[in-house]
Amino acid sequence: MKAEIISVGTELLLGHTINTDAAHVARELSALGVDLLHAHVVGDNAGRLEDALREALTRSDLVITTGGLGPTDDDLTKETVARVTGAPLEEHAASLEQLREYFGSRPMSANQRKQAFLPRGSVAFPNAVGTAPGCAVPAGDGKFVILLPGPPSELLPMLREHVTPFLQRYAHGAIASFMVHTFGIGEGAAELRIKDLTGGANPTAATYATEGEMFVRVTAKAADAAAAEALAAPLVEAVRERLGDVVYGVNVSSLESVVLPELIRRGQTLVTAESCTGGLLAKKITDQPGASAVFGTGLVTYANEAKMRLLGVPEDMLRAHGAVSPEVARCMAENARTRYNGDFGLGITGIAGPDGGTPGKPVGLVYIALSAADGVWLRVMRPQGRYLGRDWTRNRAAGHALDLLRRYLFGLPMNPD
Amino acid sequence: MKAEIISVGTELLLGHTINTDAAHVARELSALGVDLLHAHVVGDNAGRLEDALREALTRSDLVITTGGLGPTDDDLTKETVARVTGAPLEEHAASLEQLREYFGSRPMSANQRKQAFLPRGSVAFPNAVGTAPGCAVPAGDGKFVILLPGPPSELLPMLREHVTPFLQRYAHGAIASFMVHTFGIGEGAAELRIKDLTGGANPTAATYATEGEMFVRVTAKAADAAAAEALAAPLVEAVRERLGDVVYGVNVSSLESVVLPELIRRGQTLVTAESCTGGLLAKKITDQPGASAVFGTGLVTYANEAKMRLLGVPEDMLRAHGAVSPEVARCMAENARTRYNGDFGLGITGIAGPDGGTPGKPVGLVYIALSAADGVWLRVMRPQGRYLGRDWTRNRAAGHALDLLRRYLFGLPMNPD
Repeated sequence: MKAEIISVGTELLLGHTINTDAAHVARELSALGVDLLHAHVVGDNAGRLEDALREALTRSDLVITTGGLGPTDDDLTKETVARVTGAPLEEHAASLEQLREYFGSRPMSANQRKQAFLPRGSVAFPNAVGTAPGCAVPAGDGKFVILLPGPPSELLPMLREHVTPFLQRYAHGAIASFMVHTFGIGEGAAELRIKDLTGGANPTAATYATEGEMFVRVTAKAADAAAAEALAAPLVEAVRERLGDVVYGVNVSSLESVVLPELIRRGQTLVTAESCTGGLLAKKITDQPGASAVFGTGLVTYANEAKMRLLGVPEDMLRAHGAVSPEVARCMAENARTRYNGDFGLGITGIAGPDGGTPGKPVGLVYIALSAADGVWLRVMRPQGRYLGRDWTRNRAAGHALDLLRRYLFGLPMNPD
Repeated sequence: MKAEIISVGTELLLGHTINTDAAHVARELSALGVDLLHAHVVGDNAGRLEDALREALTRSDLVITTGGLGPTDDDLTKETVARVTGAPLEEHAASLEQLREYFGSRPMSANQRKQAFLPRGSVAFPNAVGTAPGCAVPAGDGKFVILLPGPPSELLPMLREHVTPFLQRYAHGAIASFMVHTFGIGEGAAELRIKDLTGGANPTAATYATEGEMFVRVTAKAADAAAAEALAAPLVEAVRERLGDVVYGVNVSSLESVVLPELIRRGQTLVTAESCTGGLLAKKITDQPGASAVFGTGLVTYANEAKMRLLGVPEDMLRAHGAVSPEVARCMAENARTRYNGDFGLGITGIAGPDGGTPGKPVGLVYIALSAADGVWLRVMRPQGRYLGRDWTRNRAAGHALDLLRRYLFGLPMNPD
């Protein structure tokens, strides 16, 4: 089964909005084993949308549109699909009922009511969050156009709860895709280690580098999900083995999503002390539901005064070594742990930039320390090559802190091999 | 001048990567007044990329590709563009020199060296961050194909420093685009207020809703940037006036980017005390370079024990009202300010979910307080409609805290009108 995505919205072509919808839809199609060979963006323009729909229907079995279903005048997707498929818009009773529920006692305008009109013969997909329902419109020869709303918070639940079950009846075969996530290795080095594993056609392995992270994707295609997974599994294992302990997980979302469950399993607690990351590490930790079981206290000691008062960093030490120093990072981690009764303390101090650097302590220099009952471990991030920005630097520093803790918790060497 | 974007990468069609590159390129083209009418994604497949390139060149003057320039075997963009434009790949001396500098004393593989090959007659764009240079390849009839690397950290500086100056010579006319950002109004309500302003063809105004935020985009097209801005300005003012004090800025990146400079200008300091947002508010504040002038201490008091110890929240109060209560939010804000010598204190306590709700205190209930020398102000976020998730809830709560401070700093009513 071949599919294409057509994302509708002038804001996408002006670069005001990033097309996350297409990625969400692509991921679901991939999991269903549907081949997505094209994705397009068109503006809020009925003529170009019509051209794109007609062309897509000549070569694909399934066309999924995102956006243009709302109440405003430039929401044109439904009208255009109705024209292309020859199915006139009709009021859909259940969708109107849901709109009425949504508005309750508030008045509903004619434009709002327009959202309850669907092309004749559609299968409606209720909107769990917003007002515009989605739908699947038959387009002849067993083909379908599926219309989804633009806001990701509306699209995502509709996709999972309604569209995927709808498509499962049509999809043949399945793709299994595994992401082997790493921290502490570059793409070039990773490629060298797995070079001879990347030549196959099914399963395949390929390296990808994103902002501050490198991962390997292993993909296999087979008759069903279980067969595809079984086909991919040995290659996933081989990649893991080659890359070694820089691999922090397969199909996990982040370092913190690996570290927090392990802390919770062990019933051990963590205290954070952050200077240049300014709360980012605590934020990442508390992104994880259930973090409260192991994380009670986080300190953002951006100023020296806060480092002294909340963490007891000695004024002498700050004067002698400066706030950005291995001594202060260690002291922050150690005192965070001991003063606030944690099993672990993490301390981060550095210069995230773009300003504040000196020849001796350049922008990008960050010290990261982990304190546990049996020792303190230090990482140094030194500026390498060109400065990649404040966000990158802070994110990377928080990653190093989580990686130190991961290595301790899983009994790995404290530095990448 | 008409342009299209072709993004190359199987990871985009599998949904593993979100296409931020296309948004970055689209924004630059829009600023240059270049009409972007189409954007596509194709996988790492030379045949489909070739088809897409040939089709794009029949109807557009400029085709910009992103991705597929790296050293690995599935990086095929350069080879395919060379075939389509008939310009063979040749070693480019300056690019090879830059590669040599990048690698320094480390060995450079043949695959790495491949990156210094460019189609004959290209204008090279050096890569300030990574290894693969970009280039502009003449495609006949005054048309060009511009090749850019996939990693956004490489693409962005290349775009700004090299591609925009290159294109400025070819672009005719300019688009001015203004984003009027709001906090505290829904899309429906905003549309009603500006309904009669949204009908024009040039300038145009349109509402957009993204995750937890609503903005109005005003766009005008004219012969040059100054004329386009002058054309848009009266409509921007009219939109601002209609929407009132929910507007926090025009062409600003975030609430914090408005609040922090004003705090810095006033020389006033802020202390944060966060429970459910777990550091997110401090992180947003310290996203702003220069935050250290006004932000020295942030407290993540996730546990009751931390609320008592660091903020002096009375145990009796926690027992009587619970940690998620107006009393505790006020006390957190007030004591953050007084104990840590700030001019302002912000306190947040709530239930971000997905677990931890009770009938009396459901998931999504958050109390947010601002303390200043002359009073304490409270906001309540009550769950409305369906639960939109932990990230949404935390982000919205931090937004409310920043909006309270914004209203105080700019002398506005403390709640939206």
